Amino acid sequence: MPISEDTFFLDTRFKGTLQSQIQQMVAEGILSGQFKPGDRLPSSRRLAAHLGVARITVTLAYTELLADDYLRSEGRSGYFVSENAPQPSHFPAPPPSTDSVDWTRTLTGRDPVAALHRKPAQWRDYRYPFIYGQADHRLFDHKNWRACALRALGTRELDALTNDYDDRDDDQLVEYIARHILPRRGIQAGPEEVLITLGAQNGLWLAAQVLLTQRRTAAIEAPCYPGLRDILHQTRCQLEPVTVDAQGLPPEGLPETTDVAFVTPSHQCPTNATMPLHRRKELLKAANEQDFLIVEDDYEFELSFLGAPHPALKSLDTEGRVIYAGSFSKSLFPGLRLGFLVGAKPFIAEARALRATVLRHPPGLMQRTTAHFLRLGHYAAQIRRMRRAYAARRETMLTALKTHGLMVEGQGDFGGSSVWMRAPEGIDSAALAKRLAPRSVLIEPGHGFFADTAPCPFYRLAYSSIPSELIPKGIEILAQTIAEMQSA
Amino acid sequence: MPISEDTFFLDTRFKGTLQSQIQQMVAEGILSGQFKPGDRLPSSRRLAAHLGVARITVTLAYTELLADDYLRSEGRSGYFVSENAPQPSHFPAPPPSTDSVDWTRTLTGRDPVAALHRKPAQWRDYRYPFIYGQADHRLFDHKNWRACALRALGTRELDALTNDYDDRDDDQLVEYIARHILPRRGIQAGPEEVLITLGAQNGLWLAAQVLLTQRRTAAIEAPCYPGLRDILHQTRCQLEPVTVDAQGLPPEGLPETTDVAFVTPSHQCPTNATMPLHRRKELLKAANEQDFLIVEDDYEFELSFLGAPHPALKSLDTEGRVIYAGSFSKSLFPGLRLGFLVGAKPFIAEARALRATVLRHPPGLMQRTTAHFLRLGHYAAQIRRMRRAYAARRETMLTALKTHGLMVEGQGDFGGSSVWMRAPEGIDSAALAKRLAPRSVLIEPGHGFFADTAPCPFYRLAYSSIPSELIPKGIEILAQTIAEMQSA
Repeated sequence: MPISEDTFFLDTRFKGTLQSQIQQMVAEGILSGQFKPGDRLPSSRRLAAHLGVARITVTLAYTELLADDYLRSEGRSGYFVSENAPQPSHFPAPPPSTDSVDWTRTLTGRDPVAALHRKPAQWRDYRYPFIYGQADHRLFDHKNWRACALRALGTRELDALTNDYDDRDDDQLVEYIARHILPRRGIQAGPEEVLITLGAQNGLWLAAQVLLTQRRTAAIEAPCYPGLRDILHQTRCQLEPVTVDAQGLPPEGLPETTDVAFVTPSHQCPTNATMPLHRRKELLKAANEQDFLIVEDDYEFELSFLGAPHPALKSLDTEGRVIYAGSFSKSLFPGLRLGFLVGAKPFIAEARALRATVLRHPPGLMQRTTAHFLRLGHYAAQIRRMRRAYAARRETMLTALKTHGLMVEGQGDFGGSSVWMRAPEGIDSAALAKRLAPRSVLIEPGHGFFADTAPCPFYRLAYSSIPSELIPKGIEILAQTIAEMQSA
Repeated sequence: MPISEDTFFLDTRFKGTLQSQIQQMVAEGILSGQFKPGDRLPSSRRLAAHLGVARITVTLAYTELLADDYLRSEGRSGYFVSENAPQPSHFPAPPPSTDSVDWTRTLTGRDPVAALHRKPAQWRDYRYPFIYGQADHRLFDHKNWRACALRALGTRELDALTNDYDDRDDDQLVEYIARHILPRRGIQAGPEEVLITLGAQNGLWLAAQVLLTQRRTAAIEAPCYPGLRDILHQTRCQLEPVTVDAQGLPPEGLPETTDVAFVTPSHQCPTNATMPLHRRKELLKAANEQDFLIVEDDYEFELSFLGAPHPALKSLDTEGRVIYAGSFSKSLFPGLRLGFLVGAKPFIAEARALRATVLRHPPGLMQRTTAHFLRLGHYAAQIRRMRRAYAARRETMLTALKTHGLMVEGQGDFGGSSVWMRAPEGIDSAALAKRLAPRSVLIEPGHGFFADTAPCPFYRLAYSSIPSELIPKGIEILAQTIAEMQSA
């Protein structure tokens, strides 16, 4: 049966070339059973005229479909749905489902995650996105990333792409991290002391699972990274929040029952405080004396642009008590989902076995592409560009905040990518964020960083995804909105 | 200071172009502090002569390094290390570590994984790899995969690549799975009933975590997929193995205490048995009457090439009791790390929250590339090619096994990618595998599929990674080795 060209419509929302859209329409028609083997396709001339595209576009689409055996060509008679084309299934539609499961009782409810701190998906629609932890395309070296990915997709590296690594990692990536990334944080580690993770979140999760049970106690900073609280909640351990000050976590505040302390010494999340050397030494001393372990989350380790970076806490650790979690989410992009854990061999071996059970390994393509990007020096160059841009944005932001008299609670003396803010008395930052959204300003309310859900004056303003030139106007709207809320 | 060309050596083991090797040597020299800002590089002519490469190769490497600001050029005076080049860190080497942690006591030991069932990394070095679950590059449509990846790496899809998806998935991938993949298994599901996972392993792990506690009971098939036993071990639930027969798991064998039954109805792992329709209905009836849930692992769902595929158990489920786990590891490649869960909305919501806590989301690039590969019809075409090849290999293998009188324990009547074998009385398959390795034959001993570690006559022979023409010789060596062991 001839298939009429009227069957085909171009969808203007389709993302991709015209050729691929045509190709997809034909393939879907065959896979859905709409077009049957032997059916004749409209001639390329007719279909092109009908869709208003160049004839070559249709011809190229048909040629691709020929190669994949969806179509066959019969010389001048044209193109037909191939007898060898993939066949649609012919299962009867299942009867309507009447769910009889009591899900409230059935689900273990181990992981009640507050919807409060989910990031908005459509953040790019905001003109003034002071959003934290998303990549800025202006600073990302897309061209070289793509070139490195292309290499990792090449015939010579097909094993790295396709293989089941089981519990192993990409050798090249581990080697580069051990030889070049860790020494820049003052850390020396061999390949058996490094595990690649699916981002810092996954690293912290693995560490928590390996070290905690419901009979153990974790000390956390207050406020702290919300994702960490979810992770620890899941282990059902005892939680002891320790309020941080301008120098980060005070070691004397740690309860004696502490089994594992989760800290962000180089740049406290979210207050940006940097823990000074004397306190770091006190913390390690306490760990040795009271026999607890420390998980160091060094999530912004590449973003120290104000003066020389502090070495990591891990670099001072002589007893194997510190587990170090790093991530490429801030220095490359979060969608990469790659980070690493550094720790003593028995710990890494256990975390590796657990990772294998949970997800086997991070995809080979992501690991190998990153290894190329690192090895060829693009990574170091990109970080340098980011640091320069962030330094400029930070200055613009601090100036604008000062101009409008907004209260900075913690700006960090190392750099970073955000400023921790405090709204005036009586203003809840969630309400502030809600008012700002229709004005195209995106801020992060502080509630998620605290254990309770009380009204919270704090909020985070990041400059990692907004260009300098838009910052003053964004801050101006912020200041106006606060003023309106005060006078209301 | 001028840098002598003698500093540079080509490494013949280097994987990549000469240009990228030169680029990397210079970048590493700068990042390690060996080359300092202001140092003059050897001229492209001298370095090219020294390394025995074309001068243009050196010039292109230098040009790349210029663009990344590692070098600056001073007209005719040549290339110098840039003053803006990334700087090496100058932390003192940490003191030698004297690990004082009692790791045996400290680690929670939730996940003791038997090294027994780890896959050999160097399997491609074997001439006769009857290995299961690795991709065959001869059947993989690498060209189109690469084209789809290139598109997903394009400027128009930069958001899909770089964004933090938080707990969300790639819309295009979910839509294609719901509209085209699931209907081929007789399953109807909306986007809120689908969750993308990091492969089937991750899907089973999420399901187990969401549904089981140490007070609940999981029924598993005996023998069963070893990774599943690790997963359930980690939940600390009660485990009830139910011995399978030639029709898979007998529903009447399930204990009354069952809360969740993990089954592989379409193709039992590892025996290849297919559960007939009447038994599937009995199983669902038992689940409804005894109020338990079923996790259906349909790991080889694309490989039914002997007659029409059975619809999935999930397609018969009218009460929302079945959770379906699929994977692209067998139909695309395992290094992809992508699979999916299908289940009732409350279940999927909880699994999604847990996934976000554990790893946030599978990398955007892998999801989007797969979506393109599926949409453009390459996937269906590749599966068809694989089915044809597997059908031919299977016939060759069964013929060879018959010729040598080897005992087939389960060959499956649906197709698949392996045959479940039994060695003669008194022969342990682990000992057999050990003898075969130096003869370049790789088989999978059966121990890992059973709960105990007793000597085991069973082994798995897969034909998914070995071409037809090598199968007869591989089977011949296998038969010879068995004969030697019998006469010894």
